Amino acid sequence: MELQFPALKDVELARQRIQPYINLTPVLTSRSINRITGSEIFFKCENFQKVGAFKFRGATNAIFSLSDAEAARGVATHSSGNHAAALALAAQLRGIKSYIVMPDSSPNIKKLAVKGYGAEITYCKSTLESREETLQRVVEKTDALFIHPFNDVRVISGQGTASMELLEVVDDLDYIIAPVGGGGMICGTATVIHEKKPQIKVIAAEPENADDAYRSFKTGTLHPSVNPNTIADGLLTSLSPLTFGIIREKVHDIITASEDQIVEAMRMIWERMKIIIEPSSAVALAIVLSNRERFKNKRLGIMLTGGNVDLDHLPF
Amino acid sequence: MELQFPALKDVELARQRIQPYINLTPVLTSRSINRITGSEIFFKCENFQKVGAFKFRGATNAIFSLSDAEAARGVATHSSGNHAAALALAAQLRGIKSYIVMPDSSPNIKKLAVKGYGAEITYCKSTLESREETLQRVVEKTDALFIHPFNDVRVISGQGTASMELLEVVDDLDYIIAPVGGGGMICGTATVIHEKKPQIKVIAAEPENADDAYRSFKTGTLHPSVNPNTIADGLLTSLSPLTFGIIREKVHDIITASEDQIVEAMRMIWERMKIIIEPSSAVALAIVLSNRERFKNKRLGIMLTGGNVDLDHLPF
Repeated sequence: MELQFPALKDVELARQRIQPYINLTPVLTSRSINRITGSEIFFKCENFQKVGAFKFRGATNAIFSLSDAEAARGVATHSSGNHAAALALAAQLRGIKSYIVMPDSSPNIKKLAVKGYGAEITYCKSTLESREETLQRVVEKTDALFIHPFNDVRVISGQGTASMELLEVVDDLDYIIAPVGGGGMICGTATVIHEKKPQIKVIAAEPENADDAYRSFKTGTLHPSVNPNTIADGLLTSLSPLTFGIIREKVHDIITASEDQIVEAMRMIWERMKIIIEPSSAVALAIVLSNRERFKNKRLGIMLTGGNVDLDHLPF
Repeated sequence: MELQFPALKDVELARQRIQPYINLTPVLTSRSINRITGSEIFFKCENFQKVGAFKFRGATNAIFSLSDAEAARGVATHSSGNHAAALALAAQLRGIKSYIVMPDSSPNIKKLAVKGYGAEITYCKSTLESREETLQRVVEKTDALFIHPFNDVRVISGQGTASMELLEVVDDLDYIIAPVGGGGMICGTATVIHEKKPQIKVIAAEPENADDAYRSFKTGTLHPSVNPNTIADGLLTSLSPLTFGIIREKVHDIITASEDQIVEAMRMIWERMKIIIEPSSAVALAIVLSNRERFKNKRLGIMLTGGNVDLDHLPF
């Protein structure tokens, strides 16, 4: 089966479609972090996106791409994280139903957020099997359309709109660095850069402790994530065939960071920039800090992907 | 002795003087906080100011107001907090010496920051007596000019530039609320509003556990702070005769907040706005949350005064 990759024009269409709904997030810089790294970094702040994460872009594009007949069926997904909240809010904005399968162990604050956006929650066990099985039942019962968090051209195209906005603020970059979990953000980014600014190198940043993308990229074979155990809880998922395909073709390198490096980078952004990012967002700066020579005197775009952290369980 | 109050024109001059050096900080809004409070709030984000606090405005204005002969003598102050860092950086920018007296118990990160800006630090005990005595010695030895953190027309005028910027973004406000410690920020704000937009009411927000300004305001007599014990560590100081005088004339009311209310407001801003503010900054939102009827359907400007927190000792 030939996989269909998104193209720049899909991202451009996504942008028109979602523009009325999303926040145009700021691009921030920090003199003190530039001094520390020896590079010049432009941070695209998706922690200020609605629902606190870039996921709202992809979910909104997917939902507003549906025909009226499709939309009337409602949408469904399984997620304990940002995609659940993103899909629920996007569905609310279109005025359709959303069905979210969440592990009953999810933090209360996340359950309340998803419920607050009007979603119907079905609880499951926290295993992937239980999630998928429960979702299957929900979809059969409701006839809702499953919107996958990243293995979906509409979702990837939506995520790509963030780097399109970044390029409008600063386009003479040497590198764009984004974290990789399932691959939605990095693939959206790579899709834009590949066609629009091929001279910019796209780098994926991944936790050492969840390095399926790194191993897949280096060996040329799709490896699943095996017992991932990282503070970067948005990056636990494995690549899909679609996102792996795009990464092989359009991403220049994958670099991993240790847990200590991730926490150090997260703390640096909190302390120096006074903004709240989640650990997954810190992985990109972590690889810059641990590869200073490589990025020295370079101009870097870094995607800060989200700001949803549990303040009762901080790593410092 | 007649106290000389700053006037709007002093703030306007301050603005011209400091503009090349300060950050033009953003004014942010939060739909979810507006929904919770029932009011419409515009947050002036001085947590994004240089050194992470509005104090940089006043210190910069004071230092760049000096004649060359005065400046050549250097500047001195005693502070364990934001004024120390602000004065040190402003002195560095003017290319003059700064002498900072700090309690030896100050957090290491603060000592390093002040040292990083090129200040010469003299350590003292953490009592007010030890601070003042040590400062006295330093001033005698160095002939440096003492720049008081708030009992100074130049400093107050500098702090007032923040609300001047706020009014340029949104000027049809019903209230402006700023926290009060020594009174530099609230007096700068009141100076601007009193002449420029007298229809806006200026409210000072103070911790219940450090309510010297509240008691002084209500009784008409200057009361010192007695054993203040609040998480809002930027608001421990007492008013001076100058700031008390301005407050009596130009501030409409002072409202206090409990420690729980301050922590709740701080957490709300962290979680909903994804920005880092220090506890002192949260007192203004705290009084809105605990006086919802009074502020319902009103348009409020809130000064978020700083973002310097010790991440190892958070109240949640």
